Amino acid sequence: MRVGIVGYGNLGKSVEQLVKLQPDMELSAIFSRRSKLDTDTRVLPVAEFGQYKDEIDVAILCLGSATDIPEQAPEFAKYVPTVDTYDNHRDIPRHRKAMDEVAREHNTVSIVSTGWDPGMFSLNRAMAEAILPNAQQHTFWGPGLSQGHSDAVRRIEGVAKGVQYTIPAPDALDRARRGETEGLDGKSAHKRVVYIVPEDGADTAAIEHTIRTMPDYFVGYEVEVNFIDDATFVREHSGMPHGGHVITTGGVGENHQLVEYTLELSSNPDFTGAVAVAYARAAARLAEDGKSGAFTVLEVPPYLLSPVALDDLIARDV
Amino acid sequence: MRVGIVGYGNLGKSVEQLVKLQPDMELSAIFSRRSKLDTDTRVLPVAEFGQYKDEIDVAILCLGSATDIPEQAPEFAKYVPTVDTYDNHRDIPRHRKAMDEVAREHNTVSIVSTGWDPGMFSLNRAMAEAILPNAQQHTFWGPGLSQGHSDAVRRIEGVAKGVQYTIPAPDALDRARRGETEGLDGKSAHKRVVYIVPEDGADTAAIEHTIRTMPDYFVGYEVEVNFIDDATFVREHSGMPHGGHVITTGGVGENHQLVEYTLELSSNPDFTGAVAVAYARAAARLAEDGKSGAFTVLEVPPYLLSPVALDDLIARDV
Repeated sequence: MRVGIVGYGNLGKSVEQLVKLQPDMELSAIFSRRSKLDTDTRVLPVAEFGQYKDEIDVAILCLGSATDIPEQAPEFAKYVPTVDTYDNHRDIPRHRKAMDEVAREHNTVSIVSTGWDPGMFSLNRAMAEAILPNAQQHTFWGPGLSQGHSDAVRRIEGVAKGVQYTIPAPDALDRARRGETEGLDGKSAHKRVVYIVPEDGADTAAIEHTIRTMPDYFVGYEVEVNFIDDATFVREHSGMPHGGHVITTGGVGENHQLVEYTLELSSNPDFTGAVAVAYARAAARLAEDGKSGAFTVLEVPPYLLSPVALDDLIARDV
Repeated sequence: MRVGIVGYGNLGKSVEQLVKLQPDMELSAIFSRRSKLDTDTRVLPVAEFGQYKDEIDVAILCLGSATDIPEQAPEFAKYVPTVDTYDNHRDIPRHRKAMDEVAREHNTVSIVSTGWDPGMFSLNRAMAEAILPNAQQHTFWGPGLSQGHSDAVRRIEGVAKGVQYTIPAPDALDRARRGETEGLDGKSAHKRVVYIVPEDGADTAAIEHTIRTMPDYFVGYEVEVNFIDDATFVREHSGMPHGGHVITTGGVGENHQLVEYTLELSSNPDFTGAVAVAYARAAARLAEDGKSGAFTVLEVPPYLLSPVALDDLIARDV
């Protein structure tokens, strides 16, 4: 299975490493707007993608969700099966439709919005809710670095560096596990912890006030603001951890059933990339099987993710 | 979607309640060898199952795995789509093949070995291993009632009533979550806790010795044996709780990624039944879509489990 990577940011770099570890994949090329990348892999101009379609069985689109995926993804889907990690939840139906039209027209397969949320969390939400009677469901995010909130604090005057971690409130987790979810919402279920390196002479009280009063991002949440020095920041806050829980409870009568899916990820792009690589395998197989159109993770038979043959997966599941 | 239930033990009773809660299902009949059952549902002789095939869109086979499923399941698959919860892991490939042959010949669909292990745990094992690079994986069972071990202690002379709970060792769970699984096996990862009501005048020391020295079942495990009175037994040990964890760790380089799937079930048959009901929906849909043959949970597109339409599942996953 020959894999092309489109884009070479954090996600593209993760995917490059992950593809090399797959027993059934080889890396064909990285497509980038830049001609020089720090990699041993062949680098080709993204504008010439179509010319290399016969050398690629599946392309992993490691592009940003803000504008790149909506604008560019359909173009790649004209040539080869694709996988993306488009994470704008509200826009997924539109994106799926756009990819479906192109993929059907060109007889390829596009798997959209893989990753973990949307992605593995979506899958677990849909399945647990379908299975448990009288289901109540809550998703918790973190402990993890929130890119959007980190960007927001970094824009504040006097902030040299800043990160924001989202952390599920322990008592909210326990309430969700017991099915006592009345009044539980995103704000009461999560705490926001901020680490700031202030610029020299900055007014830290003003920075903290700006954070605590920022609408949508921080107002209504339990917020903790910490000021630290640059060395501590570099040592302790350079990673991209994330994760969370999908907690579903239900049952008939007095019975209480809990299904919980947990992710603890020391590297968010590495896990997002790992999910995309597994679904790239599925996309190539679906296309080889004559399927065409766009698929979400909800539509893909799970065994297609694995390099192990179906009969072996079943036989060894003892 | 008209559902038939075959068999009316604990599982069949759970499935009856669960089918009634489904927005898109109605209960057509229960098929049993007994003509009188304590239910409002129509009861029909199991020997006449074939005569009612036009009144059933899917049959849920609530039969024992020891002999009933291997001997009887292929007969039902001649007439309508079926779902079973066959849980003899080592024999699943043979059972799947037997059901596949019948289902293909009669142009129906059989989903085999649903439930939670095999079933949801199998699905999570296969998916997490396919996604995480350098994956290490451990399954823990419990806290839960083990039917096989409870049967074994009840056969000991002098035992009036007995139950055995399997409990994951907390330090083993933590080791698995950290990926430190060297030397971790089923015996070191689980503790076995036994509650016995002795017969009058029974030799409790002899009972305990027999338990602790029972090969395969108890030797090599940390074992706790408790003798209790009948009232305590009835009050505290009449349920059928179970559950467990599938813990998978992996990552590239220094990154550590954890995927954990947890079930805590106050009623084992209720959850097994709930999974079977969701896959019954999938079996009927696959058959309606013209598919035929046997499927495991690994092969079924997950959205088919849900009564919610695919477009709605995607649109609301925000």
